[in-house]
Amino acid sequence: MTRWLEQQAAVRERRGLVRTPSTRGADERAIDLASNDYLGLAQDPRLAEAASAAAHQWGTGSASSRLVAGTTELHVELERELAALIGIEAGLVFSSGYLANLGITTALGGPGTLIVADEHCHASLIDGFRLSRSAVETFAHNDVAEADRLLRRRSQPRALIAVESIYSVGGDSAPLGELLVLAEEHDAVLLVDEAHSVGVAGTGTQLGYGSVAGTALAGHPGVVITATLSKALGSQGGAVLGSALLREHLVNRARSFIFDTALAPPAAAAALAAVGIIRQEPWRAQAVHHHAARLAEHLNLDPSAGAVQSLRMSSPETAVAASRAAAAAGLRIGCFRPPSVPDGISRLRLTARADLTDADLDHACAVLRDILERTP
Amino acid sequence: MTRWLEQQAAVRERRGLVRTPSTRGADERAIDLASNDYLGLAQDPRLAEAASAAAHQWGTGSASSRLVAGTTELHVELERELAALIGIEAGLVFSSGYLANLGITTALGGPGTLIVADEHCHASLIDGFRLSRSAVETFAHNDVAEADRLLRRRSQPRALIAVESIYSVGGDSAPLGELLVLAEEHDAVLLVDEAHSVGVAGTGTQLGYGSVAGTALAGHPGVVITATLSKALGSQGGAVLGSALLREHLVNRARSFIFDTALAPPAAAAALAAVGIIRQEPWRAQAVHHHAARLAEHLNLDPSAGAVQSLRMSSPETAVAASRAAAAAGLRIGCFRPPSVPDGISRLRLTARADLTDADLDHACAVLRDILERTP
Ligand SMILES: Cc1ncc(COP(=O)(O)O)c(C=O)c1O
Ligand SMILES: Cc1ncc(COP(=O)(O)O)c(C=O)c1O
Repeated sequence: MTRWLEQQAAVRERRGLVRTPSTRGADERAIDLASNDYLGLAQDPRLAEAASAAAHQWGTGSASSRLVAGTTELHVELERELAALIGIEAGLVFSSGYLANLGITTALGGPGTLIVADEHCHASLIDGFRLSRSAVETFAHNDVAEADRLLRRRSQPRALIAVESIYSVGGDSAPLGELLVLAEEHDAVLLVDEAHSVGVAGTGTQLGYGSVAGTALAGHPGVVITATLSKALGSQGGAVLGSALLREHLVNRARSFIFDTALAPPAAAAALAAVGIIRQEPWRAQAVHHHAARLAEHLNLDPSAGAVQSLRMSSPETAVAASRAAAAAGLRIGCFRPPSVPDGISRLRLTARADLTDADLDHACAVLRDILERTP
Repeated sequence: MTRWLEQQAAVRERRGLVRTPSTRGADERAIDLASNDYLGLAQDPRLAEAASAAAHQWGTGSASSRLVAGTTELHVELERELAALIGIEAGLVFSSGYLANLGITTALGGPGTLIVADEHCHASLIDGFRLSRSAVETFAHNDVAEADRLLRRRSQPRALIAVESIYSVGGDSAPLGELLVLAEEHDAVLLVDEAHSVGVAGTGTQLGYGSVAGTALAGHPGVVITATLSKALGSQGGAVLGSALLREHLVNRARSFIFDTALAPPAAAAALAAVGIIRQEPWRAQAVHHHAARLAEHLNLDPSAGAVQSLRMSSPETAVAASRAAAAAGLRIGCFRPPSVPDGISRLRLTARADLTDADLDHACAVLRDILERTP
């Protein structure tokens, strides 16, 4: 093995694709434009208090799978509240968004299912497609007409259309209304990953409830939602939202649910507190959109659908150089290179978090403008 | 979808295989012989304090992947301590044991790899084999000679032998010494899942450090360990332990590491506290073995390798009936039926947890003996 690992490492080195996580200290004072803590809740004392109380009351771990003894009242309440937020009958919580996506795709997929997926779908969805042994076809990003063509010539009895409401790396949104029409026409299930949308997207009094809440998709029998607790909800974990019948199907069939230890009580409690805050403090989602618009204006970019702004760079090297320069200037920003981008294009990724101050934001924009001007 | 889900539900119903998690209330007073909280640490106030402090200091969530901004000093310290406990160079923490197993198998597997796996391997390993696109051959449980035959006729340049040091459902152990010889003979990697062993197994002053610590496997360049933080460590999460070179390989190649939000700080802190307690309080692992021996004696079973005692039942129905009768008598025990058993045999599963009192244990044994005598 050692020899093979060394060869692999040498190839990475040669291609300039070595990744090393930098370690964050407790006293770090960088302006955070990299994380997915969109509403600033991961550091909210109310979430910390909820996690702490749950650790003392329910334990620091769930100690067994949900089916053996790991289902507490906390898990059930969180499922109810998430379902209610989005306006769907039922929810099922997993220990991560990754495992939620594996769970739903494997439980609905199989040799009798054609999965028709947007080419920008997240790795956890793609892994789920593969694990499910379904036939998989990919359509060009947001190209509903191509998805239609793929569905039209299918031979499988069942079909699943997979998209993200707000895309993880690009930050743009899916045409959910058109996709719902398409799903109905083809009697297909529409799977919408709301990972970057819950807490951020939504309209009117449901701002922050996600892209599905308040639309024809919410509660539609052909629509299934996945969400994560680890981004706007400031915690860890994931969920699938759908009908009670679907929930029961997952409980019995999703291997990543059945054979995994239940979500830890502190994480469940923190996410539950976050759902309450999303309802009570719409100013947070408003601030995300306000900051996103400001970022777009200052950097001369198209406004983004949610918190994520994506800046295409000319090469992996320029992306890395720009993010290093930003770090040196006290700015933490995301840097995405192959294979972590869906289309081979390296990017900087900026998240317009609710708890940035105007001063931080203006400073960040000035620094970034300066770096980008000097970047080929 | 609704029609298809209804059909599936009807089939489950007909076969008597419907599963429903029962919800645990905060005031439940059952004697717990079902959970994997082997050392009684999930409810330990020191872990709760550590989780609480981490929630306040680092946040309730990690807010991004390990490679973006999710690596804190806490994650790095936990990795160092886990590696030190087992006596291995390096560690990498994942958000679950499930994702750790997916990560290592996909990062080492592929079309050039033959995976030779014990037929009792856990679902998370099996899913990883499938995801990795490796060729997979299964050997009869603990049959080293059959594994040898499979490896002998391989055509792939690389091979991986996959086992659990203590098996999840059966509770018995793998012949690790023989397997190491086999791996060396075939220049294969030996992957040992220590999920049910860390905290429990070990010898002499390393009791509780797991089945690998202090043996020829620890630090061997051909051996890779996976572990979970969600069983004896009373928290949530998973880890891969191996060489620094392997760690770097995973950081760059394991999709379930790269594309997943980092483990939540409260979970990392709780697991870190648990590692310290395992070192300081060997009486806990001793108590597990003491209780396991007592359970075996009272119920006339072979002594188990770790905390898990497995009782074969004649059918899924008798297993369910026995576990319901136990519940009615204030005893929470595990009930495993197809497809959650590796060999089609339904079982009761009892865990000899460290913090059971002698009175609880004797009461549990009396109740169980009584139930088993009345069970066909
Ligand atoms: C679109 C999308 N889905 C799912 C996930 C996985 O969620 P988690 O990190 O909570 O496992 C992520 C990010 O990590 C994501 O960006
Ligand atoms: C042998 C084995 N490996 C891995 C896992 C997965 O670990 P986790 O529950 O922490 O995801 C489990 C149990 O859940 C297990 O029994």
